[in-house]
Amino acid sequence: MEAIEELAVQPCTSSLYLRPFRLSYRQNGTKKFWDFMRTHDSVSILIFNTSRQCFVVVKQFRPAVYMCEVERHQPQVFQNQDKESFPSLENPLPAVVGVTYELCAGIVDKPGLSLEETACEEVLEECGYRVSIADLRRITSYRSGVGVTGSRQTLFYAEVNDQMRTSGGGGQPEEGELIEVVEIPLGESMKFAYDETFPKTMGVIFSFMWFHNNIAPKLPKK
Amino acid sequence: MEAIEELAVQPCTSSLYLRPFRLSYRQNGTKKFWDFMRTHDSVSILIFNTSRQCFVVVKQFRPAVYMCEVERHQPQVFQNQDKESFPSLENPLPAVVGVTYELCAGIVDKPGLSLEETACEEVLEECGYRVSIADLRRITSYRSGVGVTGSRQTLFYAEVNDQMRTSGGGGQPEEGELIEVVEIPLGESMKFAYDETFPKTMGVIFSFMWFHNNIAPKLPKK
Repeated sequence: MEAIEELAVQPCTSSLYLRPFRLSYRQNGTKKFWDFMRTHDSVSILIFNTSRQCFVVVKQFRPAVYMCEVERHQPQVFQNQDKESFPSLENPLPAVVGVTYELCAGIVDKPGLSLEETACEEVLEECGYRVSIADLRRITSYRSGVGVTGSRQTLFYAEVNDQMRTSGGGGQPEEGELIEVVEIPLGESMKFAYDETFPKTMGVIFSFMWFHNNIAPKLPKK
Repeated sequence: MEAIEELAVQPCTSSLYLRPFRLSYRQNGTKKFWDFMRTHDSVSILIFNTSRQCFVVVKQFRPAVYMCEVERHQPQVFQNQDKESFPSLENPLPAVVGVTYELCAGIVDKPGLSLEETACEEVLEECGYRVSIADLRRITSYRSGVGVTGSRQTLFYAEVNDQMRTSGGGGQPEEGELIEVVEIPLGESMKFAYDETFPKTMGVIFSFMWFHNNIAPKLPKK
């Protein structure tokens, strides 16, 4: 699995990625404010490979998840850290506690690209399958966060087969993406979805259940 | 609905609520860093009222969601804002674009309170029903975010009836919570779940579907 070394953490005073803002307002007469982060909308794609009757998901090391687990085990990890020092983590937890299973997904940040075009790009980059817009079925959209971020995520379903695979996927290493493509056999998928020893997003659980309700009954019998 | 007035936005340089950190590390030999936010784990509760055969959810104004919609309509809203000025929003959108439907939920931040105890407190505070730990069924847990935050959310199911209602709910006004309790009739719930004109979290859609798969078949016929 992942080799994660030389871990160090520090407060972050300025970031290209985290863009905090404060909204002040009066709600039903009461003066309030709320701090939030600007984010991009995103797309997420449930991929089912009909050749091998499996779901195609991605697995990656997530620093935010890892640090939640570190804090759970070492509650003092964020204390005593000023903005100058950058202390190394002592006795770091194994990287696997920060590795999550997720649907193929990506943010919508390229001007002129539709949600569907963005979804096709992500399927190719992350999972190595060439799909067209006609291969996508829109499932629904929802808010991916409501407290800190408030962006909208649109969920698609894409059926693929082995002939559509053009590469191994894995994301864009030049952008620092290190993504592992994982196949979850259909027959084991609901057991996997509810097995809490595999850290995952709600999107995986929801979309697997959606498939079992909406697609599985129509699959050709083998 | 909500009266939201005197809206103004500014960059946020220091916040009690947003706590940004940077993790630096070496992954498979490559030096990397990731900016993330410290957050608390949370609980979320699907509430079904058997007396009236409806789901009980909450509805509230979410500044982060509102500002996403503002930026969609006025992409320049975050530009030209330095840290001193605090400009008012011109021609603000109606508050309703920032109002979302969500499951009853809360963060786990009280030392010594279990997930189940936290869930019972939230059901009482937000929705006005007195439930005991024995009334809760754990559905599963998952990561509520993997990019910016990495915290774990645990989802419970609670069956309530009119006799268990002790107040109107609505959250803690002294903490600035202004929450509206909303009932979604069972018969309309899946239509509601997939109606994208009602902004909502994935938790609502997922848990309604979970109920239809796991609880509805066992409900006494009326």
